Amino acid sequence: MLLELNQRNLTLIQLVGFLLLHRDNMESFKEEKQGLSAQVWPTGPGSWTQVSCPCCMSSQVEPLVLIQLSEEIQPVTKKWIMSRIAAVEKDGGAQLLAHPGEDMSSDLIVVSAPRCTLLRATEDLGLCKPYRDGSMAAFSYQDRHSFSNIDDMQQFLTLAERQYIVKYELESLRALEDQRIPGVPEPQCNLKARENIFQKLEKAGVIQNVFPLHDQKRLRDLGREWYSKRKLWGQPLDSIQAYFGGTVAFYFSFLDFYTWALVPPAVLGVLLTLLMPSPVRSMAEGQELSGSPETDAKAGMEDPDHPSVSAHMVQAVFSMLWSTIFMELWKRRSSALSHRWGTLHLAERFAEPRPGFRGELGTNPVTGRVEPLFPEWQRNLRVGLVSFPVVGLFLGLVVLGMAGFYYFEGFISQLHQDSGGSFITTALLYLPSMAHIVYTNVLGNIYRNVALQLTEWENHREETSFQNHHTTKVLVFTFFNYFAVLFHIAFFKQDLPLLRKRLASLLIITQLINQFTELVVPFLVDWFFNTPEKEVKEDDPEADKLQAQGSLPTFPGLFAEYIELLVQFGYLSLFSCVYPLTAVLLLLNNVTEIRADAFKICKLFRKPFAAPVANMGVWQAAFEVLGFISVMSNCWLLLLSPRVKEFTLEAGLSTRNVLLFAIMVEHVLIVVKLILAFMIPDEPEWVKIDREKIEYHSLKALNQQKH
Amino acid sequence: MLLELNQRNLTLIQLVGFLLLHRDNMESFKEEKQGLSAQVWPTGPGSWTQVSCPCCMSSQVEPLVLIQLSEEIQPVTKKWIMSRIAAVEKDGGAQLLAHPGEDMSSDLIVVSAPRCTLLRATEDLGLCKPYRDGSMAAFSYQDRHSFSNIDDMQQFLTLAERQYIVKYELESLRALEDQRIPGVPEPQCNLKARENIFQKLEKAGVIQNVFPLHDQKRLRDLGREWYSKRKLWGQPLDSIQAYFGGTVAFYFSFLDFYTWALVPPAVLGVLLTLLMPSPVRSMAEGQELSGSPETDAKAGMEDPDHPSVSAHMVQAVFSMLWSTIFMELWKRRSSALSHRWGTLHLAERFAEPRPGFRGELGTNPVTGRVEPLFPEWQRNLRVGLVSFPVVGLFLGLVVLGMAGFYYFEGFISQLHQDSGGSFITTALLYLPSMAHIVYTNVLGNIYRNVALQLTEWENHREETSFQNHHTTKVLVFTFFNYFAVLFHIAFFKQDLPLLRKRLASLLIITQLINQFTELVVPFLVDWFFNTPEKEVKEDDPEADKLQAQGSLPTFPGLFAEYIELLVQFGYLSLFSCVYPLTAVLLLLNNVTEIRADAFKICKLFRKPFAAPVANMGVWQAAFEVLGFISVMSNCWLLLLSPRVKEFTLEAGLSTRNVLLFAIMVEHVLIVVKLILAFMIPDEPEWVKIDREKIEYHSLKALNQQKH
Repeated sequence: MLLELNQRNLTLIQLVGFLLLHRDNMESFKEEKQGLSAQVWPTGPGSWTQVSCPCCMSSQVEPLVLIQLSEEIQPVTKKWIMSRIAAVEKDGGAQLLAHPGEDMSSDLIVVSAPRCTLLRATEDLGLCKPYRDGSMAAFSYQDRHSFSNIDDMQQFLTLAERQYIVKYELESLRALEDQRIPGVPEPQCNLKARENIFQKLEKAGVIQNVFPLHDQKRLRDLGREWYSKRKLWGQPLDSIQAYFGGTVAFYFSFLDFYTWALVPPAVLGVLLTLLMPSPVRSMAEGQELSGSPETDAKAGMEDPDHPSVSAHMVQAVFSMLWSTIFMELWKRRSSALSHRWGTLHLAERFAEPRPGFRGELGTNPVTGRVEPLFPEWQRNLRVGLVSFPVVGLFLGLVVLGMAGFYYFEGFISQLHQDSGGSFITTALLYLPSMAHIVYTNVLGNIYRNVALQLTEWENHREETSFQNHHTTKVLVFTFFNYFAVLFHIAFFKQDLPLLRKRLASLLIITQLINQFTELVVPFLVDWFFNTPEKEVKEDDPEADKLQAQGSLPTFPGLFAEYIELLVQFGYLSLFSCVYPLTAVLLLLNNVTEIRADAFKICKLFRKPFAAPVANMGVWQAAFEVLGFISVMSNCWLLLLSPRVKEFTLEAGLSTRNVLLFAIMVEHVLIVVKLILAFMIPDEPEWVKIDREKIEYHSLKALNQQKH
Repeated sequence: MLLELNQRNLTLIQLVGFLLLHRDNMESFKEEKQGLSAQVWPTGPGSWTQVSCPCCMSSQVEPLVLIQLSEEIQPVTKKWIMSRIAAVEKDGGAQLLAHPGEDMSSDLIVVSAPRCTLLRATEDLGLCKPYRDGSMAAFSYQDRHSFSNIDDMQQFLTLAERQYIVKYELESLRALEDQRIPGVPEPQCNLKARENIFQKLEKAGVIQNVFPLHDQKRLRDLGREWYSKRKLWGQPLDSIQAYFGGTVAFYFSFLDFYTWALVPPAVLGVLLTLLMPSPVRSMAEGQELSGSPETDAKAGMEDPDHPSVSAHMVQAVFSMLWSTIFMELWKRRSSALSHRWGTLHLAERFAEPRPGFRGELGTNPVTGRVEPLFPEWQRNLRVGLVSFPVVGLFLGLVVLGMAGFYYFEGFISQLHQDSGGSFITTALLYLPSMAHIVYTNVLGNIYRNVALQLTEWENHREETSFQNHHTTKVLVFTFFNYFAVLFHIAFFKQDLPLLRKRLASLLIITQLINQFTELVVPFLVDWFFNTPEKEVKEDDPEADKLQAQGSLPTFPGLFAEYIELLVQFGYLSLFSCVYPLTAVLLLLNNVTEIRADAFKICKLFRKPFAAPVANMGVWQAAFEVLGFISVMSNCWLLLLSPRVKEFTLEAGLSTRNVLLFAIMVEHVLIVVKLILAFMIPDEPEWVKIDREKIEYHSLKALNQQKH
């Protein structure tokens, strides 16, 4: 049991540790909660840098992104960075607005974006915005006056979009020619032509952090609507998208949709549990089940109608249909959301490459811009010939670890028995588990590093491609870690009662830990906040408030959240026919999960950047792959169930024929799944029409254009 | 054996029958071979209809397409049809040129297209053409003067493209308002608004045939280069594409590529046969093999090194790698061809729907044109809920027929033995085969009708979508028909020696029939031509020469040709580890196949219309699916091979564990296949760049456009 909980425990320990360590930061954060009454800072000499473009002039500028510099920063370096940020594009600048914070000697730069930069980037990113006739259209700078809300950037772009654009522009900053960064010691100060400036500064340690700033008022409003209200269902998805951005909003939308989707299997699970005979009920009553299939089979013989077989079958077929329909409907929902949020027509491949992208400088043959180039076949070779085998190797090591654990455990318990149970051998009994936990942890840490390095080395041009490859690598390993034991019990030990027991306890213990980390911990945090001696200081300098945001830990990303859902979905779709109450437990868990996740992202971490995205990316595929595996898994579990075994024995079928029959059933089920997936269109009709409209307009425009 | 050859025999009989029946047509065709010295007809009063557009005026017009009318046609009807063809688009016409043939009373209309219509249709279809800077660009009418060869339509568009455009325009003809067709009897003459005119006329029997005309001079040149020369390799693919069009050119390109690709497996097959012990060599020497695996296993035991197992394994793994690499490289070749032939950016979805498309009249929400509309979800429902089950039903009937055949055959041979071999029972021995042949044929004919009706009923908007769904249906059935017996022998009877025997004889007999139909029959045709009393009459009226082309049979389409390749590929990739010489036999076959197919399409049939296409369409997918099935098939065949069975027996492995191991191996092989497919990019780098360039330009154009 320790095996599976091990990772979870670590997370929990980390969280509690963090809370204790950051008690002070919490306090300063608390103060800031009420601060910054005006989220817009005035312009004037000595504050924001100046813009030359008349349409971008404004007396009030909204601070969007904070750059934390090293404490030893020299004013000349800070000045140089600010000049790069503020310079116009043809001078190699980012054409943004920079504010020095308190004064030139502080280690902060606050960045904002003028109107023209925002609009041009909106076009570059390929965002769709409401056209004056009410439809969504790919934004065009030249035709900007035909779009709604074009005069108010706060309305036209969401806060998350504005902040993402600032990040995008900062990360696109490249040196025009070979030059030196003033005030930085020798080897690190040399910038080559077209070298990425921000990446260089981060490597040199000059820039410590870049993160988007919270808008405290809007955050409070969002929080109230999201997790403070005592309503059970529904989240303010549009507000989440506007405040946190695409990736975060897609996660919460999926969580929402998934929780709703759990209702039918939960109902079925309750029904089956009520109608089903002994095994599950005895489970629920806490009786120990016989471990051997033979005795279990005998128990079944007392029941002439084999209700357990039919319950198994109902559950297996239902679970297959449910997972297919669920994923198909989610795809529709996802494309509807993407339409609503204007990300149907993203143009990432024609935009600047991601900052980490390396390659020989050359002219991009498609766009004609000078940028690093790297041939795709070389990347594919790297993925296929190096990354794949390396990942395979690590999976092999996981299996090896598991095999070693079982072997070692058997050996020691034999020793313990032989020696008649001495104190030393009793202590030794814990050794295999301990060794395995250490092994798994070390392996996991090495793997995380290797996965990141490998993905960097694969040299992806687009950020989403990088994310997808990285996520896939970590995902496969994590998934393997979680499920290897269950698969081992199911298909090698072929011990269904043990599987059932293990699954139930995993689910229940997972519940408990989740409840603890996600309800108790927030409660602790709240307690930290409400200690009476810590009072708000409204007159704190702005810079301190900004620093306070910076001292929060970085948002760890949505990986852990998604993998939790995926593992849940795995329990449900792979093994639920063994333990029908799975869905009920998951449903209970998710209702609290939504609030807890919301609280975490709003309160406990620095605000993350979130790119505008059109879907869940690689997670979509992961859930679908799991759907396919679930067909096979359910099929084989059915075959292994003692009553089916006994039935085939009575019918006089040979093992080979039963297996061939099972393969046939499996393939028929997969075909049914494919037909279902085919019949439910991936996007609603109206989204499809709108998407094709954009494509058609783009074709027409191409044809009408004089080259 | 009769089972599988049955379909082939029918084709052969049909061909010979056709040759005898059409002896007369052959003669007239022969005359015409030398005729039509000028492929361009002069304009003038009473010949071609007039054009209003000044740039389309020309003194010479090339006849492109022939419309054969019913013999009872009234001149008033013919005149009406010609007026529809010649009218400008805003009057609901096709804006083409029509020629009445000899005079208004003949049953012919010759159609050509003026320059503007050709250019506009080129834009509508989304064809790419060479830009003045040498790159390929999506053709734009507005920017036409920037494209090469724009002043000479014969250079700018290929003959096949010009003819396809005429067909496209004719089939797009729709009535502007409710009207009556003059000279046609009552119920059939009523045209509703927006009803398709040509479809109506074909249903009413007024139009008998519409087909593109041969250009005898170019046909002779093409033939000389293609099949008359005594060279073994290489085909004039560009000329084929120019003369016959996209689909035909893709078929011959694939045939060419596939034949080359057969060389490595052929070499391996020869090597294995030379190095391998008894089974195959004894096969080749014509010795009867023992039918039972036990004796075969004993034979293997005399050989302690199990060379047959390793040969099997080499062949199985090689065949998997080969089929993957072959398909990946073909995809690259295919996209390079598509780039070369300007079909990278086809815009079929935005063009007019296919003539058979029905639906309520409405405004297409994407293009804004009035046309029939039919919701996609309804089509998907029809495909999923009706077409799929019906196809499944027919596949079931095939299996039922096979089961019935085996049962019946066993029953009769038992009867024959019991009765001691009387004359009546000897005659009865043939009954099961005969009954099965009749059953299969009737079933096949019914199925062909059902498949066509079903696909019509599914109501596809685009022609390629229609073709793909129709082809898939027929394909699955035909494939099942061919391979059901082999699969039955391989996996249910599990009788590898019988499989080997069957495969070898199928291949050899297939060879013989192919050689006969494709070498002897053309020879017969040539003999028909060269009878001395039939001499060329140069002074035959043009109309007779056109009629002669019309009297040739319709080209039966490429389905039979493709399915032949697919079945070959199936023999090779599914079962080749059982009979290594497969590839050698196929290679020999294909070298003659190329010439024979070329001769057939040039000489024996009416010229077909061929749409510009970007790839092989559904056949691409069919070959890839076969590649996946082949991994499984090879894996299981290996498992069934007697020496492996014996080996596992010696190693003391249980059947279940061996099967589990095989499943694992299968999945690993599939993963390797996927990795390989991933690593070889589907399009060459330069094609990708050009395609993205077009997309980028289209995006830029959209952004620069004032809506």
